Amino acid sequence: MPPLSIRVLRVGHRFVRDDRTLTHLCLVSRALGAEAIYLEEAEAELVQQVRDVNESWGGSFEVTVGTPWRGVVQAARKDGRKVVHLTMYGLPLLERVGELKKFTRFLVVVGGPKVPGEMYHMADYNVSVTNQPHSEVAALAIALHEIQGGEELKRDFGKSKLRVLPKERGKQVITE
Amino acid sequence: MPPLSIRVLRVGHRFVRDDRTLTHLCLVSRALGAEAIYLEEAEAELVQQVRDVNESWGGSFEVTVGTPWRGVVQAARKDGRKVVHLTMYGLPLLERVGELKKFTRFLVVVGGPKVPGEMYHMADYNVSVTNQPHSEVAALAIALHEIQGGEELKRDFGKSKLRVLPKERGKQVITE
Repeated sequence: MPPLSIRVLRVGHRFVRDDRTLTHLCLVSRALGAEAIYLEEAEAELVQQVRDVNESWGGSFEVTVGTPWRGVVQAARKDGRKVVHLTMYGLPLLERVGELKKFTRFLVVVGGPKVPGEMYHMADYNVSVTNQPHSEVAALAIALHEIQGGEELKRDFGKSKLRVLPKERGKQVITE
Repeated sequence: MPPLSIRVLRVGHRFVRDDRTLTHLCLVSRALGAEAIYLEEAEAELVQQVRDVNESWGGSFEVTVGTPWRGVVQAARKDGRKVVHLTMYGLPLLERVGELKKFTRFLVVVGGPKVPGEMYHMADYNVSVTNQPHSEVAALAIALHEIQGGEELKRDFGKSKLRVLPKERGKQVITE
């Protein structure tokens, strides 16, 4: 089976700017094995912050800003990706994950509070991580974790300036 | 085996107020089966928001504001809880989860960027959800998911005003 390839798309504007949530979505996507995230809008500072994290901690995770969401979904389809839309209104993740694991290429779509109805129809799967209101950051984390069966937690980020040496107590960071 | 009992504690102040992250931590704790969260500080508005979610969506999740974190940890210990501190510097969750599953009562501690060194020594387990920087919301979600073995996603919140009827496409909410 070829290696998994997962990209993430954030859909749905907020009226209040919510840069903190966008930062979390980027860093979670990166840390949990996705290769890129598409954002409709973001501050230049956010993009720089993720670039800095790559530089310090490894990998080549990409942030793409400004492509309209429909275009991202259509391109993903052509690229052979299954489009998995996370929504509290969808069918339970655990009932769908067996089927999802048959595929290797994904676009995981994370909604904000203003997801256009069309998204539900363009998705191959509308999947819920509980049907309770909580956090798109948490839903993304659990979906990435389930789709990759925990393998994403063992991922090696290759060459990096900084590396944690996991410890029972306290902190240890190795500098290149 | 008695039912699991999980409480969550947020430790570590930020200089910049970060209410959005606190909201996510509360709602994730509630949606993923914890019974309460302890926050050192929070706006009254946040507490009210969680109360509103309980009222609409069920359950009796509690937010406790203002108890100093050491007191919460000490009380949890006396109450027979294992103290599991989530930190990017700890030992991998998946290496520890087998042992954690022998217990039924937990205090899961979520760090902000300013966790006192003492926390690492007071914890029974310092556990990492990847050794990469990402999001305490995501780390909490995956830890709750692993400790409860996915059962938390099937949880019934009992009597509620609103209830989602999970669907393949679109949204359906049942009103009591």
